[in-house]
Amino acid sequence: MNGIEIRQVFKRYGAVQALSNVNICFGEQKIYGLLGRNGAGKSTLLNVAANRIFADGGEVLVDGERAAENDRALSKLYLMSEKTYYPENMKVGTAFRWAKNFYPEFDEEYARNLAGSFVLNTSSRISALSTGYLSIFKLVMALSVNVPYVLLDEPVLGLDANHRELFYRILLAKYGEKPFTVVLSTHLIEEVASIIEDVVILKEGKVIRNESREELLSKGYTVSGGARAVEDYLRGREVLGVDAIGGLRTAYVLGKPDRSNPELEFSGLDLQKLFIQLTGM
Amino acid sequence: MNGIEIRQVFKRYGAVQALSNVNICFGEQKIYGLLGRNGAGKSTLLNVAANRIFADGGEVLVDGERAAENDRALSKLYLMSEKTYYPENMKVGTAFRWAKNFYPEFDEEYARNLAGSFVLNTSSRISALSTGYLSIFKLVMALSVNVPYVLLDEPVLGLDANHRELFYRILLAKYGEKPFTVVLSTHLIEEVASIIEDVVILKEGKVIRNESREELLSKGYTVSGGARAVEDYLRGREVLGVDAIGGLRTAYVLGKPDRSNPELEFSGLDLQKLFIQLTGM
Repeated sequence: MNGIEIRQVFKRYGAVQALSNVNICFGEQKIYGLLGRNGAGKSTLLNVAANRIFADGGEVLVDGERAAENDRALSKLYLMSEKTYYPENMKVGTAFRWAKNFYPEFDEEYARNLAGSFVLNTSSRISALSTGYLSIFKLVMALSVNVPYVLLDEPVLGLDANHRELFYRILLAKYGEKPFTVVLSTHLIEEVASIIEDVVILKEGKVIRNESREELLSKGYTVSGGARAVEDYLRGREVLGVDAIGGLRTAYVLGKPDRSNPELEFSGLDLQKLFIQLTGM
Repeated sequence: MNGIEIRQVFKRYGAVQALSNVNICFGEQKIYGLLGRNGAGKSTLLNVAANRIFADGGEVLVDGERAAENDRALSKLYLMSEKTYYPENMKVGTAFRWAKNFYPEFDEEYARNLAGSFVLNTSSRISALSTGYLSIFKLVMALSVNVPYVLLDEPVLGLDANHRELFYRILLAKYGEKPFTVVLSTHLIEEVASIIEDVVILKEGKVIRNESREELLSKGYTVSGGARAVEDYLRGREVLGVDAIGGLRTAYVLGKPDRSNPELEFSGLDLQKLFIQLTGM
């Protein structure tokens, strides 16, 4: 089966069970959102998938082959992660040239063009880049490697609003030209809600949702109104959570709305709000 | 005069003029938003204000005293910055105890309570924290030092949506109890738009806006409608920028709206959109 298959993966750090029986398949040519709170295990999962961290149990397959110590399987994926593994003092432009040794499809010209779009100075030392520009350097690398599976761990960390917009546009343009698999882990859910097709939500090391965005959002709705009317409405229904502002209530409810009370307003779920309700403490 | 006064500050890195004749006063008991694109000079400015970077020219006064090599002046301010200066292997809880040596008003109990609210493990090593939890550790420190001037450089970097919300709530609660000066530098402008009172915008090392949020937003408006109608309307007006989606246009305009064409929709400016228009390339 093609794709990245994560099978029964467990990983523990000291007293913390970072991943607990995780089973996911990231299929071909799709954009996934990997969502979870701080500490939910997203980075650990991506590092396990890319063979940078060894799981305590379970396995990772790439296009049906076990990934562990399998260069052919691993050459099909690229992880943009928090950590960078470039030699001290290496310059941005040197890294672009160097990348071809590891990723034969790396497109240096495209990388230099992207650097131009983001005003990233190719003669800067990687170690001297600001948080935002380090992210830009890393995402330029990730967009230029041309492998079938690209895992992006917080690609817009420290990016300004204009640069975030630019990144989303470039990602979609590249995907539109020649689709590939993108697993996008981010805390800026609102911004990526329209980009991602499938949503995987991790909570405390477990997968709590794994379905298409449409499916997920169609499972419930939002109801707003005066506290009394909303509370009456919610009785006997499956409620994910309620936000209160003064005497007003907004509730996130599973199922289909019953619009018989004209005092109540109904609308669809919003991915970020739903996420907060599903993962809140 | 009380406050942090930044006078005619210049700073150059190689070929890049990071700060160019910057003059700002951060007054007492106010929440400032320090906004700017990646590379605009925000972090450099905050580091100069906190005497961590020496300017090439100009000076910084804290409550009327020159800050350079002046411990009394510098003890009144705290900078939460990208860099951390904790000994290798120091644990979170040790840092809380240690902080009192440098900041006599540091409230260790409050810090431990905040750590509890964010589920930050006080026995973790600082160097082992994830991006999100490192930000949480740093903002707990910044909220517990109890000095009159707190400078926050990207306090929510890597924080999930729930933790960002929690931080904003805690910041406002603390400010409401005993106001202090907060200078908040962030790329998540929408989220802080309702918190900040004054806005300072840097562009390429220069201050291009420095006024209250109300004042800034009252200077213009948004007009939307069909491309033709909007283009006609814009003729002879001062236009900050135009967004196009299909045949629709949304324009950001300075001045007062003329509502005579019923096909056009008018609304106020939104800080993030205005920022993008003011600082876009």
